[in-house]
Amino acid sequence: MAPLTDFGRLSLNQITTNNWSLQEAAEGCARAEVPWIALWRNKVEEAGLAQSKRFINDAGLKVSSLCRGGMFPAATAAERAVRIEDNKRAIDEAAELGAEVLVLVCGPAPDRDILGARNMVEDAIAELVPYAQERSVILGIEPLHPMYAAERSVINTLAQATTIAEGYTPQQVGVVVDVFHVWWDPELYKQIARASGRILGFHVSDWIVPTPDMLLGRGMMGDGMIEISRIRQAVEAAGYQGPIEVEIFNQEIWDRPGDDVLAEMKKRYLEHC
Amino acid sequence: MAPLTDFGRLSLNQITTNNWSLQEAAEGCARAEVPWIALWRNKVEEAGLAQSKRFINDAGLKVSSLCRGGMFPAATAAERAVRIEDNKRAIDEAAELGAEVLVLVCGPAPDRDILGARNMVEDAIAELVPYAQERSVILGIEPLHPMYAAERSVINTLAQATTIAEGYTPQQVGVVVDVFHVWWDPELYKQIARASGRILGFHVSDWIVPTPDMLLGRGMMGDGMIEISRIRQAVEAAGYQGPIEVEIFNQEIWDRPGDDVLAEMKKRYLEHC
Repeated sequence: MAPLTDFGRLSLNQITTNNWSLQEAAEGCARAEVPWIALWRNKVEEAGLAQSKRFINDAGLKVSSLCRGGMFPAATAAERAVRIEDNKRAIDEAAELGAEVLVLVCGPAPDRDILGARNMVEDAIAELVPYAQERSVILGIEPLHPMYAAERSVINTLAQATTIAEGYTPQQVGVVVDVFHVWWDPELYKQIARASGRILGFHVSDWIVPTPDMLLGRGMMGDGMIEISRIRQAVEAAGYQGPIEVEIFNQEIWDRPGDDVLAEMKKRYLEHC
Repeated sequence: MAPLTDFGRLSLNQITTNNWSLQEAAEGCARAEVPWIALWRNKVEEAGLAQSKRFINDAGLKVSSLCRGGMFPAATAAERAVRIEDNKRAIDEAAELGAEVLVLVCGPAPDRDILGARNMVEDAIAELVPYAQERSVILGIEPLHPMYAAERSVINTLAQATTIAEGYTPQQVGVVVDVFHVWWDPELYKQIARASGRILGFHVSDWIVPTPDMLLGRGMMGDGMIEISRIRQAVEAAGYQGPIEVEIFNQEIWDRPGDDVLAEMKKRYLEHC
């Protein structure tokens, strides 16, 4: 076991301090000496794209990813075309902000046909790849926990995500491993090894018991059941040495002062990641 | 598509009318002409084993399964031995009640070591098989939805359950397919085909959106996202022609009069299963 000993790879995913604006998050990271940040599009929109870029640069931060593109399946071709356009804007924003990776939360089915929706995801990614590549943005498919299959994403295992990614070069499409989404998977370590060379991001949080809420029930690292360090080392063995994003959806954590959350997050990062 | 046209395979899983005692459920099934019932051990205990058997016989019902054995992983060997003893009592009860199948909800890990807990499950099943076989009870491994991995079962995919079952004859160990637990699985149809000849039960309900609760958020068939009929036909193509249990954990449904629930369940069964 090789523990993490410094904060060189630590990234604040903005959702963890959801009550902070982008400017507040950037300044908070600078104060806490967290070198990376993952941005959310709604926060970028609030601040404005040019201004967001300035805040990030002023704080001396690197952008680990932009959250999120995706939401591809829709009932009609016209609606799907609208989603594609929105994803092109997300790619533009990622390029402008210097985010190498656009995280894809692929979206739920518009009806009961989950297999059809999965095909729509594949078609949409195929359509976006040339646009993204021209702008040097890599599409990062993030498999979401199966409990989100009906409402957020029909891509629910690392195996699925990797199978799609394998249709492209690692400079075009890869996968994002979030411990909260994949920790339960009986194939986890096999699939991490299979995704070697295609892992574009690693997200940490914890699965707390009892789980207070399906969406806002994630815990701080160390408070739950996930073997985070073991998964991190598997991801590293598969070649990933990039930023480690702390991404926690939790109302209680959101309600705390952001500086306190960052201090706790740094402590837990060394202890449990 | 071959629709269901009669109620010959319909089984009321007792949890669907959780406010009913075993006697009330048995009499309710008789009134509604539902030929099968799946019993829960806590309800059997309340009524007494001999009395339970009498209620079932008086109502002219067949028992599709007994819920539930399992809960195998524990921190110490002594605790695991207690679980094994409890499962032997469950096997005795299944035999006495004429339930061919004891459904196994295998249990969560006692700590963060999910792989270790999975090994404990395999060890426990191996220990129970001879005891169950002597009493003509088959152990039915039910994979539970990954959102229950931390609190209810470390067996979370049909692939996992089938791999364990394949270590035994189909008269010793098989799998139980519950649409709520498996509908999201990208490997679902492949794994149902693989489980051919080893499927011991088929459970239906629905995944409603938004999901009101992680445990008590299941819906009546037709109210949600699951392609129930498609899954049923895959299970039949894999050789299963046995009872179809309606198993719904939902406080609102529990609060309705049981006779109304059974009437609705019969209607939805023909329309959506």
